Amino acid sequence: MGQEMDGRYMLGKQSLEMKNPVYIRDSASVVGTKEGQGPLAELFDMIGQDDMFGCASWEEAESSLQKDAVYLALGKAGMKKEEIRYLFAGDLLGQSIASSFGLAGYEIPLVGLYGACSTCGLSLSMGAMAVNAGYAQHVACVTSSHFASAEKEFRFPLGYGNQRPLSASWTVTGSGAFILSSTPGKKARARITGLTTGKIMDYGLKDSMNMGACMAPAACDTIYRNLMDFGRKPSDYDKIITGDLGTVGQHALIDLLNEKDVDISGQHMDCGIEIYDAKKQDTHAGGSGCGCSAVTLSAYILKQIEEGAWKRVLFVPTGALLSKTSFNEGQTVPGVAHGVVIESAE
Amino acid sequence: MGQEMDGRYMLGKQSLEMKNPVYIRDSASVVGTKEGQGPLAELFDMIGQDDMFGCASWEEAESSLQKDAVYLALGKAGMKKEEIRYLFAGDLLGQSIASSFGLAGYEIPLVGLYGACSTCGLSLSMGAMAVNAGYAQHVACVTSSHFASAEKEFRFPLGYGNQRPLSASWTVTGSGAFILSSTPGKKARARITGLTTGKIMDYGLKDSMNMGACMAPAACDTIYRNLMDFGRKPSDYDKIITGDLGTVGQHALIDLLNEKDVDISGQHMDCGIEIYDAKKQDTHAGGSGCGCSAVTLSAYILKQIEEGAWKRVLFVPTGALLSKTSFNEGQTVPGVAHGVVIESAE
Repeated sequence: MGQEMDGRYMLGKQSLEMKNPVYIRDSASVVGTKEGQGPLAELFDMIGQDDMFGCASWEEAESSLQKDAVYLALGKAGMKKEEIRYLFAGDLLGQSIASSFGLAGYEIPLVGLYGACSTCGLSLSMGAMAVNAGYAQHVACVTSSHFASAEKEFRFPLGYGNQRPLSASWTVTGSGAFILSSTPGKKARARITGLTTGKIMDYGLKDSMNMGACMAPAACDTIYRNLMDFGRKPSDYDKIITGDLGTVGQHALIDLLNEKDVDISGQHMDCGIEIYDAKKQDTHAGGSGCGCSAVTLSAYILKQIEEGAWKRVLFVPTGALLSKTSFNEGQTVPGVAHGVVIESAE
Repeated sequence: MGQEMDGRYMLGKQSLEMKNPVYIRDSASVVGTKEGQGPLAELFDMIGQDDMFGCASWEEAESSLQKDAVYLALGKAGMKKEEIRYLFAGDLLGQSIASSFGLAGYEIPLVGLYGACSTCGLSLSMGAMAVNAGYAQHVACVTSSHFASAEKEFRFPLGYGNQRPLSASWTVTGSGAFILSSTPGKKARARITGLTTGKIMDYGLKDSMNMGACMAPAACDTIYRNLMDFGRKPSDYDKIITGDLGTVGQHALIDLLNEKDVDISGQHMDCGIEIYDAKKQDTHAGGSGCGCSAVTLSAYILKQIEEGAWKRVLFVPTGALLSKTSFNEGQTVPGVAHGVVIESAE
């Protein structure tokens, strides 16, 4: 039995093929003011009037983002919370408090996940695995980040006004929620057809203000492994989309893959580069955070797939596995990246 | 297809039945000095000479615990790391750095999990789901905690010498690793046959020095839901084993279940109560942490099952979803508990 089932799903060294339908039935994005002034502004479902979202602390505001994103996604899908069997959720804060406090009210079994800014890919992966296996008809996957709570968690309180080098990224204030289902409903936004779960890659870099470079090796490894496991070339994807490498990490990724004789320069896109107008908005290398790839997927990428502009994309959120403690103790910044193959629903 | 598969696995509101074999093929436990002086001392696979485990910081020591536990579990199972398709891992530190830095060297796709001290149950659940579905033949599940890194993360540096109330628990220094497989090998230790994934339960308690009381409602909910979903009564289990409720939480749990006309007083056991001799070792309410339930499962519970003393247990690690930030901002301490049904392998 084990052998027979392995043949159904496992591909190559670290990928899975989804043999049963896993639809992204609907999704929603909620963002803060800076994202609401960026190039994707008109595509988001909700833009906050200010970045406190009516709450008393940045952390509560981030919890509120997750709550709202799930609420909107359920509403758009025409579903009730009782229909969702699992929540797969995470964020960047210590002990994932944005998820815990934001999602408690839904009373849905919770799988708490941590993959730094790659968590959107990890939550979609675990959700797709649950739906594909028949463990659930509907699950919700949600991740978030908040500029101010992340700066406090990883660097300094905003009030210090410390300067940031040009290689630094700007944590996105936002949350994206996705309803995955075994059935399409009226009209699903897309389908998840494959997964490549990432390994930790550590090239020994220690600069938390240059996370693009720290994460590029992980993105390279996951993309390369996805192409090998599925027997595809870059042009088999309309886009290969990383989460938050930014401009510095993008160069590193393309160079690293070139060393393996893989050229993705024609397909590569990065959510962190798309979400802000770096020059006008002074966001340096680009956007980052668990919310960056999540809101860009919901607002922009799935729209392109729905409209037929893209048929198949490889979505690869990237995460830097540091904490304030590990950084202060002089540790490296290892990276991880989780790949999700997303295709048009038809 | 969806419907047909739902009938195979989904039970009641939030449980799954494992229809395919999921063996706990082998496991290992590594603990610190205090645990090595407790009542379970002779059952652990490795006891550190001191709690630094040859490292330069408490956090590195905790990473080393996870590395060693996986290494020993692989060795006991007679397996190589290349045979493991996924690692399901977590700990209590901000951004789960004990797992990230401890496990990077294995080069195995990593699913990072966070459920506070319930993470052992969550990792076994996700691992069992992956093996049962045919996504992997072998996975490893590992969690850890360290007294000193946890005190620093959640409370104060040890050097402050702050006093602890009697309701406080003592974070276990230890890590437990489990190899789950679709085949038993020479002789498996036990089998996972069912899962009940927990919801967040928040009764509004705010005392981080009385986590037993904060987590008892979650344990109550998961145990009650497990009994309903599987159509069982408490005596269908030889033991119902919580992770780290301690003596205060145990009373609360038994009372809360009595209110639902369920009496588990004959079956209940708590890993936090078993692991220390509270009076002699001055550990107050009992042990806690991601390592507490993990090492007790590996060293003591699985041994009882192997020896035939117990045929079927409900293992329910319990977690308190607070962070230093949420506590300092006056938030409540919500709880979560993930149930795993473990039976003898034959």
